[in-house]
Amino acid sequence: MILRTSMPSPFGRMVKIAADVIGMIADMSVVSADTNDPNDNLRQQNPLGKIPTLLVGDDILYDTRVIFDYFDQLSMEKHGKSILFPGSGMDIIREKTRLARVIGMLDAGILVVYESRFRPENMRVDSFVEYQLEKVTRSFAEIKAEHPVYENGAAPTASDIALACALDHFDYRKQLDWRDHCPSLASWMIDFSNAVASYKPTLPDDIDVADWR
Amino acid sequence: MILRTSMPSPFGRMVKIAADVIGMIADMSVVSADTNDPNDNLRQQNPLGKIPTLLVGDDILYDTRVIFDYFDQLSMEKHGKSILFPGSGMDIIREKTRLARVIGMLDAGILVVYESRFRPENMRVDSFVEYQLEKVTRSFAEIKAEHPVYENGAAPTASDIALACALDHFDYRKQLDWRDHCPSLASWMIDFSNAVASYKPTLPDDIDVADWR
Repeated sequence: MILRTSMPSPFGRMVKIAADVIGMIADMSVVSADTNDPNDNLRQQNPLGKIPTLLVGDDILYDTRVIFDYFDQLSMEKHGKSILFPGSGMDIIREKTRLARVIGMLDAGILVVYESRFRPENMRVDSFVEYQLEKVTRSFAEIKAEHPVYENGAAPTASDIALACALDHFDYRKQLDWRDHCPSLASWMIDFSNAVASYKPTLPDDIDVADWR
Repeated sequence: MILRTSMPSPFGRMVKIAADVIGMIADMSVVSADTNDPNDNLRQQNPLGKIPTLLVGDDILYDTRVIFDYFDQLSMEKHGKSILFPGSGMDIIREKTRLARVIGMLDAGILVVYESRFRPENMRVDSFVEYQLEKVTRSFAEIKAEHPVYENGAAPTASDIALACALDHFDYRKQLDWRDHCPSLASWMIDFSNAVASYKPTLPDDIDVADWR
């Protein structure tokens, strides 16, 4: 398997951690991709020009959630059980909704970053940034009400992996400080970092220090 | 089940058609939602404030792909087989990638619409619109190369449903004319419309006429 991604991508990082969790990291090599470079062959591989994109034989798989579903099949074959989406029936659907929530938070955060990356300063619209950030803060309020405690050890679920990568990404791009909205996630991150081997090796090089990094 | 959506949403329409395809439409009522209204309780139900959102007992499910996975479970229970993601193993993952492609096209198209909806005219950035539209046109080039023919009759797959809704949405919001990029999809739409009972009843009221509408 070849993974096209870039070091700062939270979605690419999720795929790396998930591959390690299901015991497939040795079968995956990473080839860096630049989504901003029209000459990068990423746009021929994935017409959306997005990362992560996973090459498996002649198949090209995207996006993150599809790759997670593929890894889940591999995990079932290899271990006889699901690690990323444990349980059955509605348990799986609830886990997928939690994953969709984190991905929605990141998508909103990325639009906040794009507002400055793609626009001259006098063409940025504060109300658009505020509209996106409210999606993130409402989601943190919901997570806070769920009293999150990290308890899955070396077998994080899909939404656990996504949440760890999302929190680091908010620290990295600084759209907002999640500690203001859900402070208990700091101890969640310490427990996740201590339990999941691929957490530290997949951090962006230049991210700020924290107790769990 | 209660579906929160609005008539013009291509994603909400996908969910309605999928519910009909798996034989569950009679169990679902629709309660209109306004994503732009901060007082709509949608934002309490789904912190991302997005449609479609599906209420199932005490569970709240989003987004479209999660709802499709839930419907797929219902279909397996009810019919003993998958209609939305037929086959097994990599067949399912390929179908999910095709679905992700169509959703990515729509997401790019929606950012094009937002560029005018959320911004005064002098704050719109043409290069951003162009960057998004290129994702759509590259995807149409890929679909064209696949020589699409609609052959699934009354049992469309998830990506079939998504594609029909996406083509209508591009006609509705007029970001681009897909006939310029993949003309054979016009006969695909005629065949889909003739075969899928919920196609016409779910059209937006004020969409332009076409041979298949």
